[in-house]
Amino acid sequence: MTLRHRIDVAAGRTPADLLLTNARVVSVFADSIHRTSVAIADGVVVGFGDYRARRTIDLKGAYLSAGFTDSHIHIESSLLTPAAFARAVVPHGTTAVVADPHEIANVEGAAGVRWMIRASAGLPLTVNIVLPSCVPESNLVTSGARLTAHDLKKLTKLPRVIGIGEVMNYPAVIAGTRAILEKIRLIPGMRVDGHAPGLTGKALAAYIVAGIHSDHESTTAREAREKLADGLHLMIRQGTTEKNLSELASIVTPANAHRCCFCSDDRSAHDLIANGHIDDILRSAVAEGIAPITALQMATNNAPYYFRLKRRTGAVAIGYVADLVVLENLKNFRAQMVFKGGTLVAREGKLVVPCTPKQQPRVHNSMHVKGLAAERLVLRTRKRRARVIRITPHQIITREEIVDVTPVNGIVAADPSRDLLKLAVIERHRASGRMGVGLVRGFGLKRGALASSVCHDSHNLIVVGASDVDMIAAARALIASGGGFAIAAGGKKRARLELPVAGLMSNASAEVVSEKLADLNRIAVSLGSAVDEPFLALSFLALSVIPELRLTDRGLVDARIMKRTAVFL
Amino acid sequence: MTLRHRIDVAAGRTPADLLLTNARVVSVFADSIHRTSVAIADGVVVGFGDYRARRTIDLKGAYLSAGFTDSHIHIESSLLTPAAFARAVVPHGTTAVVADPHEIANVEGAAGVRWMIRASAGLPLTVNIVLPSCVPESNLVTSGARLTAHDLKKLTKLPRVIGIGEVMNYPAVIAGTRAILEKIRLIPGMRVDGHAPGLTGKALAAYIVAGIHSDHESTTAREAREKLADGLHLMIRQGTTEKNLSELASIVTPANAHRCCFCSDDRSAHDLIANGHIDDILRSAVAEGIAPITALQMATNNAPYYFRLKRRTGAVAIGYVADLVVLENLKNFRAQMVFKGGTLVAREGKLVVPCTPKQQPRVHNSMHVKGLAAERLVLRTRKRRARVIRITPHQIITREEIVDVTPVNGIVAADPSRDLLKLAVIERHRASGRMGVGLVRGFGLKRGALASSVCHDSHNLIVVGASDVDMIAAARALIASGGGFAIAAGGKKRARLELPVAGLMSNASAEVVSEKLADLNRIAVSLGSAVDEPFLALSFLALSVIPELRLTDRGLVDARIMKRTAVFL
Repeated sequence: MTLRHRIDVAAGRTPADLLLTNARVVSVFADSIHRTSVAIADGVVVGFGDYRARRTIDLKGAYLSAGFTDSHIHIESSLLTPAAFARAVVPHGTTAVVADPHEIANVEGAAGVRWMIRASAGLPLTVNIVLPSCVPESNLVTSGARLTAHDLKKLTKLPRVIGIGEVMNYPAVIAGTRAILEKIRLIPGMRVDGHAPGLTGKALAAYIVAGIHSDHESTTAREAREKLADGLHLMIRQGTTEKNLSELASIVTPANAHRCCFCSDDRSAHDLIANGHIDDILRSAVAEGIAPITALQMATNNAPYYFRLKRRTGAVAIGYVADLVVLENLKNFRAQMVFKGGTLVAREGKLVVPCTPKQQPRVHNSMHVKGLAAERLVLRTRKRRARVIRITPHQIITREEIVDVTPVNGIVAADPSRDLLKLAVIERHRASGRMGVGLVRGFGLKRGALASSVCHDSHNLIVVGASDVDMIAAARALIASGGGFAIAAGGKKRARLELPVAGLMSNASAEVVSEKLADLNRIAVSLGSAVDEPFLALSFLALSVIPELRLTDRGLVDARIMKRTAVFL
Repeated sequence: MTLRHRIDVAAGRTPADLLLTNARVVSVFADSIHRTSVAIADGVVVGFGDYRARRTIDLKGAYLSAGFTDSHIHIESSLLTPAAFARAVVPHGTTAVVADPHEIANVEGAAGVRWMIRASAGLPLTVNIVLPSCVPESNLVTSGARLTAHDLKKLTKLPRVIGIGEVMNYPAVIAGTRAILEKIRLIPGMRVDGHAPGLTGKALAAYIVAGIHSDHESTTAREAREKLADGLHLMIRQGTTEKNLSELASIVTPANAHRCCFCSDDRSAHDLIANGHIDDILRSAVAEGIAPITALQMATNNAPYYFRLKRRTGAVAIGYVADLVVLENLKNFRAQMVFKGGTLVAREGKLVVPCTPKQQPRVHNSMHVKGLAAERLVLRTRKRRARVIRITPHQIITREEIVDVTPVNGIVAADPSRDLLKLAVIERHRASGRMGVGLVRGFGLKRGALASSVCHDSHNLIVVGASDVDMIAAARALIASGGGFAIAAGGKKRARLELPVAGLMSNASAEVVSEKLADLNRIAVSLGSAVDEPFLALSFLALSVIPELRLTDRGLVDARIMKRTAVFL
């Protein structure tokens, strides 16, 4: 099909492919709703009004909006492949996301980014890519890969790459470090997303001046207002655990909404199934008092416009790609139908087209571990005090807790009676045999062990346990399955969620992943787990850039000073 | 200066170049006004608040906005060079324009576009360029040049070229003509401005689908609303003769303003001096009920954002170029100071920096006329009726009038007693000797003749007169001066405004041009002229694409059917 054909249809000389009649078209450009018909040719909206068409669908007065875009998401956080993710979100009206494949990049580097691009080709969801800017997170941990500005440059030419992903290393930016500035300035005019939690005043100014264009980390209205006035585009985050909309909705006005859009950052498979995706955010936005057309503008047009996408998308307008969603009303935002490039892809919450990538990219085992043996978990000391990682409920920060210990024959063991568990981070990318061992409080496990290959940001193998034997059993179960989550007790594997794609993503559906994870959580509770989402909590304990105390494969890290430290003192 | 330096200043490690204190900063991003100080380094806004600086200016509570942008203008219409134009508008707060050098391109082709770019380098005004898409206007006239898609492609690499200028040949677009589509699709993602007066429904849809992004020709609210909903960016025009703001202001809402901006299209030197430029439009906009911050958003941020300019401009925000204007209030929008890239360039209506191009490009005589003799103006016929061009007051459309004539010895002469004047269009680009001669009514001249080398769009030499002798005298006066406007009477030149740059632009200041033109108009009135702006009216009589009747160097044209026709019938 050619441009000439679309012009012919628009001009009424040739019939359209599809005519959607009796639509209440929401125009985020005109700030209005029109009752009309919408003609589609070659996957593009070509006209409004009375057209001849080969096929007609009567929308019976339902609202017609552009499909929704998530402006910033890590698909890996759902534990789903892009195809399974698409199957979960497209029926909710999402037709595009901007994905930062930051997790798989930490495991597999450029190959991981390429995997994500290939695995999302040909889906009924446009997976735009922003390139991970901070791989690895720091020098205090062994990641599977390192992405320099030079590496990223080569990736900018790949399909659907539209920008640079959240620049998390803001201290380096503010300090004017050359390596990070090179990444920010990679392609003139390309968008560079920010990540500036709590940053304010001169530090925020320095970060923006360096070439950052957006931020999705505001948690207070005051913070968001400063960022907006300073010139950042606001991505209002409403994820599974991080929910900022109710705090930030008050600062959105019709006149500044064009600088705001929505993102989920991280949404679990369960959340996607149970609550939805951008439709869920729209419900909340309107409930918080944002005008429906304004909320839809934020959910549809503002991300494509911010990212300066060349193809016209994000509005029900002429010449725009016919990514459309038919909504029952502008309150529940229930998607009755979803069109992708003019094709009906979902109806009444069900996908009605295949949803597999053009070519399923190869998945290879990413678990490379050497020298795993129970004796390597042993903590030996003559000292009597230990630095223990204290989990903070519902937050990713941890506290340093100084705890008295009583070595027996020079060995400190886990002591579940005092909620003192062993924690190990096992390097799993290069079979270096590197392993860090420490102590953690707050998990509550009375027996058994939990292991995970999802372990931010470097995704080594992390294991927490009440016994060394169970820790080894859980770790071995994971290594055998190519990664995932595992629970062991009594020296044996009890349950497992396999995540064979980079140790991060399942090959199963959102429903299966969600169920299996629920099972694992139930078993964890039966073993004494005191946290709601033990695998989520576990996955953050190696993140060396977040205070106070962390454990990596290189040992205990005091993240307040970004230095290694000793377990015993 | 480096990015590193700007980061250091933003972070407070190094003093700023300039600090503007006690500013009421208008944030078109946050939809708010903040009282703060603004730090500038290396021509860029780097921070808000308390900064050390090498120089401080106390704004004493005045409003600080980004400088204004005219989203669509033909600088040639002011009869001024870019430098003289800049001298006129910068003191009014304009810091950028998007110029379509369509007039000079019709005379000199690619060389004319290059001239415009060179002549505007290094001014305290950013002259962005959109490439003229419709040169020549039609095949019914001889232009000085022809610009194909291939020619335009080469020009896209020149400095400050940001898009394709108004695609006036909408019938060709709607018909899907290949040559015009090639121009529209020249560079993926590059903006293509439209020109669709009165276009509606399917014709408008076809025009937009082809790849048009904006329009500045709406004259009614209904028309503008349809274009906005269809997906076009609206450039609301408020020129010297075409004034659409009061009609269109009612459709602008805070929620759709992000799709709207201002343009002047054509503003005369006199208008610029007497009334101003975008500041004048802002006064009208606020008087028409548009909220001041919304009006400023339209005047500052929306054009750069629409055009996807790579450098951040159009807002008082961090990382944005310090093109700033200090405003007494948000009602009269009087510019107390204007900063360009952080340098004070105008104060209290006066330019305080030099305003000449880096290198004044060469101007060569563009008047190439052969075989100019009184006998060639003679109209011979044996018929008794003539097709006469009837001027419509205050409009550029003309009417066809069938008038009885009485040839004397087979010759039809001008008859001022019946307001029947002779009109000649003399080819002046290639010395082809081609000349069209016809009759016109509505000018009112009792004696003498007016000649102009400004003659849309091909800018041949056009002469109207009550006597052939005076017509030749006026034309000769123009040829001698390299083009311009001239009046002759009694067989001699009476007055002249020299426009030696392509026969379109003066080397004088706006004040001088304005005065000289006023003189010419007074003399025209003394000769009987019945139209307010006789040279403006004259300049449109050869425009072969506007109905009904036109005269070109190839003869009389019926623009309703785009065909040549005979004067006598």
